[in-house]
Amino acid sequence: MRILVLGGDGYLGWPTALHLSRRGHDVGVVDNFVRRQYDFEMGVDSLVPIVHLQQRVRVWEQVSGLAVTPFVGDLTDPAFVSRIITEFDPEAVVHFAEQRSAPYSMIDRAHCVYTQVNNVVGTLNVLYAIAEHNPAIHLVKLGTMGEYGTPNIDIEEGFIEITHKGRTDVLPYPKQPGSFYHLSKVHDSHNIQFACRIWGLRATDLNQGVVYGQETDETTMHRDLATRFDYDGVFGTVLNRFCVQAVIGHPLTVYGKGGQTRGMLDIRDTVACVELALLHPAAEGEFRVFNQFTESFSVKQMADMVAECYPGAVRIEHMEDPRVEKEEHYYRAAHTKLLDLGLVPHLLEASTIRSLLAVVDRHRDRVDPVAIAPTVQWRKTASAVRASAAMPGA
Amino acid sequence: MRILVLGGDGYLGWPTALHLSRRGHDVGVVDNFVRRQYDFEMGVDSLVPIVHLQQRVRVWEQVSGLAVTPFVGDLTDPAFVSRIITEFDPEAVVHFAEQRSAPYSMIDRAHCVYTQVNNVVGTLNVLYAIAEHNPAIHLVKLGTMGEYGTPNIDIEEGFIEITHKGRTDVLPYPKQPGSFYHLSKVHDSHNIQFACRIWGLRATDLNQGVVYGQETDETTMHRDLATRFDYDGVFGTVLNRFCVQAVIGHPLTVYGKGGQTRGMLDIRDTVACVELALLHPAAEGEFRVFNQFTESFSVKQMADMVAECYPGAVRIEHMEDPRVEKEEHYYRAAHTKLLDLGLVPHLLEASTIRSLLAVVDRHRDRVDPVAIAPTVQWRKTASAVRASAAMPGA
Repeated sequence: MRILVLGGDGYLGWPTALHLSRRGHDVGVVDNFVRRQYDFEMGVDSLVPIVHLQQRVRVWEQVSGLAVTPFVGDLTDPAFVSRIITEFDPEAVVHFAEQRSAPYSMIDRAHCVYTQVNNVVGTLNVLYAIAEHNPAIHLVKLGTMGEYGTPNIDIEEGFIEITHKGRTDVLPYPKQPGSFYHLSKVHDSHNIQFACRIWGLRATDLNQGVVYGQETDETTMHRDLATRFDYDGVFGTVLNRFCVQAVIGHPLTVYGKGGQTRGMLDIRDTVACVELALLHPAAEGEFRVFNQFTESFSVKQMADMVAECYPGAVRIEHMEDPRVEKEEHYYRAAHTKLLDLGLVPHLLEASTIRSLLAVVDRHRDRVDPVAIAPTVQWRKTASAVRASAAMPGA
Repeated sequence: MRILVLGGDGYLGWPTALHLSRRGHDVGVVDNFVRRQYDFEMGVDSLVPIVHLQQRVRVWEQVSGLAVTPFVGDLTDPAFVSRIITEFDPEAVVHFAEQRSAPYSMIDRAHCVYTQVNNVVGTLNVLYAIAEHNPAIHLVKLGTMGEYGTPNIDIEEGFIEITHKGRTDVLPYPKQPGSFYHLSKVHDSHNIQFACRIWGLRATDLNQGVVYGQETDETTMHRDLATRFDYDGVFGTVLNRFCVQAVIGHPLTVYGKGGQTRGMLDIRDTVACVELALLHPAAEGEFRVFNQFTESFSVKQMADMVAECYPGAVRIEHMEDPRVEKEEHYYRAAHTKLLDLGLVPHLLEASTIRSLLAVVDRHRDRVDPVAIAPTVQWRKTASAVRASAAMPGA
C-alpha cells in the first residue's frame, strides 16, 4: 500500500513509518520539523539523541534495503499539501502532524492560537487535498482519548446510542476535552466527520491513549533509527517522566491526588494499531473512531509500578496539580475495535518498565533535572506564565 | 450596564447596539467591516441601503440623544482586542463578530479556512482578553441552532442527561453541524466552555435560529439607522429571500423537498433576547446555552406562507438541494430558557410577512435577480465551484 505518514519525523510518526516500510508498504514521510523547533524554544532535548530525517532515511535504506521518501513542508501551506498528495498519490494518509502537547497549548494566548490554527488548518488542508485528488484515499488520523474527558458514564468508541424522551439515535459521543490542544483534536474530529458526510471520504480517527516506551523492532536495528524520548514538563508523558525521575534520584512527582486515570499503550502497539487500521480501511463516506489504548492506569498506580521496578530507592511526592482536572473520577472506556481487528497488546509489565529504565540509564548524563518540573498552569493566563514559559524550569 | 457589541455594524449587531443603547446601557460597537467587504467580493448589496458606521452613530445621537462609541479593528488582532476590553472596560461583551454564512464557508478551501480561523481565533482572543482584564465580564456569544443538526431525538438547550449502562451524567449535547461555518460555532462552544471551566469566566451561548425581518423599534427611527437586508444565495436567509422572489415575480425556490425544519425568530426578538441574557448573567464559571428561537417551520411551510400573503400570483419551485442535509426529518427543540426570563415572542404572522414584503417593495429597483440563485454546492470542492463563486449568479 502507498502510505504517506504526516509528521513522520516525530516520536510516533517515525517508528510508524519504519514499521509500515518493513511490513512491505511504500512509505513517504512528511514533516516540517516544528517538533525539533519546540526543543529550541523550550531549551530542552530528547533524552535519546536523534539524527536528522535525511540521515535516518539513509540509514534505514542501508539497514533494511527499503526506501522511505521524505517530503519537507508545512501542512498549513495548501499548495504543499496538494503537491504531496498529487505527487505521492497515496492510497492512505496517516496523520500525526499536529502540535501534541497539552501544556504547550496552555502556555499563553499565542501558543493556544498557534496550536488550534496549526492543527485545524493542517487537517482541513489534508481533507481538501484528498477530496480534490482522490476521495478514495483512507485518512487515518491521530486523535486522543483526552477528547472525551472524564464523564461519569462509560466512554464508547466515538458514538453513543441515546434514548431520550422515548426516541433513540446514535450520536457523536459528547466531548469534554481538558486543554486547548485536546480541543483542537475535538475540532478536527468534527471537521473530518463532516468531510466524510459531504464528500464521501473514508476516515479513521484513532483516539489514542498516553503512549509509553521508546523502542520498536525497527528503531532498535540501528542507533541512528532511534526515536525521541521526552521527559520535560511540557512534552514529556507521565510514565517516561517517572522513569527519568527514578533514575536520577528525583522524587516521582504526582500531580494532585494521582487518581487521574487514563488509557495507556506501548509504543509497539501504536505502530501495530495504525497498520491494522490501514489494512481494514473505512468504507466510502464512513467516519469511524477506534479507541487506541490497551489498559487504564491512574497516575498514582504508575508511580507505584515504577517505584517497585526500580532497583534503588524511590520517593513519591504529591504536588499541586497544574491542570484543571478531576483528581478522582469514574473511568471506563471501550477499546474493542482494534482488538477485533487482531491487535495483540503488549501489556505494561515489570519487564517493560525495566527496559524503559535501561534506556534512561544509558542516557542519564543527558538529563536536565530543571526541565522536569511543570511550568504551565491551567488556571493562569497572563504575563506571569509567559515569563516562566520562556524559561522552562525557572 | 457597559456593553461592548462585537460585530456591531452587522445585520443583527447594529440593531442590538441601538436597542441596548435606548434601553439605557452604555454601548460600544466594534467592527472591521468584513461583512461589507464580502459584498464587494460577491458583487452583491444589501437590499436596503445602509450608511457608514460613523454616520449611523452620528444620526443615532441626533435622534436619541444617546452616544454609542465605535471601535474599528479586527478580533484576530490580539493587541486590538486587549486594547478595547481594557479601554472600554465593559461589564458584558456581546459577540456577533463572526463570518456567519454557511454557503460562504463552503465556497472552497480558502473560504473554509478563513471562516474557521476568523471565528475561532477571534473568540479565543476575546476569551483571553476577558480572562486577563476582568474575568467577571459576562460574554454573550452568538451560536446557532445549526450546531445541533437534525438528530432523531429532542434537542435540548446545550446539555443532555444521558443514562448509559446504569450510570448517569449531564453532558454537552452532541453536535452534528452542517457546514464549515456551523462547525466553527461548535469549535467556539467547546473553547468557551473550557475557558469558563479553567478561568471561571461567565458565558451565555445563544444558539440562535434563522432570523427574519429587517425593522426594529430603533432602526425605524431614521432612514440612516436601517440595518442590512440580504437576499442573495450566499448571505440571504430563507424567508427574506422568499419575500424578494415574490415581489419580483420569481418562483420561490425551495431546496429539495422543503421538509428541512428550522427554528426561526423575528429580528425584534433577537435584540430582546440579547438584553434578557445580559440582565440575567451567567454565574462565575458557568457556561450556559439558550436556544434562541420562537417557532419551527419547514422551508416548504415558509414558502406557502409567503405565497398566501403576497397579493399577486406566486409560484413555488423545487430545485436540487445544493446542501447535504436531510430533506425530511424529526425536529423538536427546547427553547424555554429565554421564555422563562420573560421573552414575549413576535410570532410569524401574516402581518409580519406583509411588512417584510413592504420593505422589499420599497427597494424592488435594487434587486439583482441573478444574485438569488445558490452558487455554492456542498458536494463539490474544487475549481468548478471557485469559478462560479467568483461570479455569483453565473
